[in-house]
Amino acid sequence: MDLSEYLASAARSIDVMIDRYFVDTTGELNKASAHLLAAGGKRLRPAVVMLAADAVNPGSSSEIMPAALALELTHTFTLIHDDIMDDDSLRRGVPTVHTVWDMPTGILAGDVLYAKAFEFLIRSKATDEAKIRATSMLAVACAELCQGQHMDMSFEKRDDVDEGEYLEMVRKKTGVLYAAAAGIGGILAGGNARQVKALYDYGLNTGMAFQIQDDVIDLITPPEKSGKDRASDLREGKQTLIWIKAKEKGIDLSPYKRDLTDAEIDAVIKKLEDAGVIEDVKGIANRLVATSAKHLALLPPTKERELLREIGEFFVTRSF
Amino acid sequence: MDLSEYLASAARSIDVMIDRYFVDTTGELNKASAHLLAAGGKRLRPAVVMLAADAVNPGSSSEIMPAALALELTHTFTLIHDDIMDDDSLRRGVPTVHTVWDMPTGILAGDVLYAKAFEFLIRSKATDEAKIRATSMLAVACAELCQGQHMDMSFEKRDDVDEGEYLEMVRKKTGVLYAAAAGIGGILAGGNARQVKALYDYGLNTGMAFQIQDDVIDLITPPEKSGKDRASDLREGKQTLIWIKAKEKGIDLSPYKRDLTDAEIDAVIKKLEDAGVIEDVKGIANRLVATSAKHLALLPPTKERELLREIGEFFVTRSF
Repeated sequence: MDLSEYLASAARSIDVMIDRYFVDTTGELNKASAHLLAAGGKRLRPAVVMLAADAVNPGSSSEIMPAALALELTHTFTLIHDDIMDDDSLRRGVPTVHTVWDMPTGILAGDVLYAKAFEFLIRSKATDEAKIRATSMLAVACAELCQGQHMDMSFEKRDDVDEGEYLEMVRKKTGVLYAAAAGIGGILAGGNARQVKALYDYGLNTGMAFQIQDDVIDLITPPEKSGKDRASDLREGKQTLIWIKAKEKGIDLSPYKRDLTDAEIDAVIKKLEDAGVIEDVKGIANRLVATSAKHLALLPPTKERELLREIGEFFVTRSF
Repeated sequence: MDLSEYLASAARSIDVMIDRYFVDTTGELNKASAHLLAAGGKRLRPAVVMLAADAVNPGSSSEIMPAALALELTHTFTLIHDDIMDDDSLRRGVPTVHTVWDMPTGILAGDVLYAKAFEFLIRSKATDEAKIRATSMLAVACAELCQGQHMDMSFEKRDDVDEGEYLEMVRKKTGVLYAAAAGIGGILAGGNARQVKALYDYGLNTGMAFQIQDDVIDLITPPEKSGKDRASDLREGKQTLIWIKAKEKGIDLSPYKRDLTDAEIDAVIKKLEDAGVIEDVKGIANRLVATSAKHLALLPPTKERELLREIGEFFVTRSF
């Protein structure tokens, strides 16, 4: 099975659980909680949970599917809340929760999924000791995610963010949830401390690469392909790695604000490509993926380890 | 030790933990998370956790203090988020989190405490099996709290809420967190299934009585005593039990909306007292407390059981 087949199959397993536990519900708040979950999504974090489990204990992923779902619930709660904070209107090709309902319902819809994440996590078949460690890892990750989102927003009010700060933000905002996905898969499957650490570090580096590529995609991928508003970071004046690297090359992106035309966005992209900015940024993402592969090498050589490595490669080569 | 001494002592223990883990932190988001926690509060839910633990296993409360703190963190996260939804400006005598910072920081500050609640819960000294059950109980309670808050808000847009719907809302919005406080204390202290159920049911009924009394306090207690905006329910047109019982007696509270003068509020209170509405509402709260005492009677006769019973009494006699 190649990576795309594996990911499609993993996504279907998660979709079945989402349909069963979330979509067939009554009540406006339950519908609001299910809205973004049911809108698709690549279910990458659940796939990482499943592969990590099988990488340390072949065949164990079928026992920990509730934990795989838990990671998707966590990710979705953060998206719902982030969309309110950023007042984004489109996500996964559908209107965001707070625009379909309202801000209060959006906050609560995220809060419901937050609770459900912990509820499902401990429904996995694993030892109680492993479940406690997994719960702790998820809780710590959630607190760090909030710190990452807060840093990300604070960057909008600044024009002097450096690469170190940016990478810290990305580590917290995206890295730690992939780290927790891989680590939790390893913990629940009975992996030893060395294996769990290797998986955690794999996820951390891969997740950071994912976010950096996401920033590239935000800029260069058309909205009909990405399912998001185009070049929202640029229009919001976000200090992404693209911004920081552009500045190093003497390109100031600060004059580009809301209400950019498609032609103006195209011109900015051309300028950044010509100056080698996008290549530089991709180079940083590629090095993170290379680091994540080194951590993976500490695990036994299995098909699942190879798929985890390919996920890292995929993260930095995807265009949406 | 009488109840007020016990509660003061329990609150001090929680305050020490709050100072240690939350107040002495750096970063705007951490400060925002600590803001409402540090503003005082009666720490009633932690006291219920501690008393429940000691009621089934004398002396065990010292082992489960992180769980007591977890219940206060959960309560505080809901307050921060509720204040955003209701756009309230004052809480515990201080400006609300989203008014001191902003809406996005308020959402994140609540989300941080939400994660910390689960993190602390499992730091208690208890069996792994008990911690898993406690985690599940807290997660289920959090999802129900959201449902309760959503029902509460939906009542604002209606004028036909009946007593049954109101009591369901109060059960979810306030009852389940007191139920979880008592149940979690019992679980972590090693209580048997019958004891845990008795404690859960005690908390559920007591918590409902607490919320009904809170609605009475919202109307009749001056803001300098309650630390909240005066008669906010009335001004927001909320369908509380007072509203419902007033309607049964032919008093329509719907014309009373925002910008009421103190004299107008006083006149409404007088009218409701004369018609026996407030007495009726208090009667319902008293019956819930009587039910909670019956559940408590299933526990061994200890000093802590007596204090739990007194908490129920206190909840419906307090004026702020």
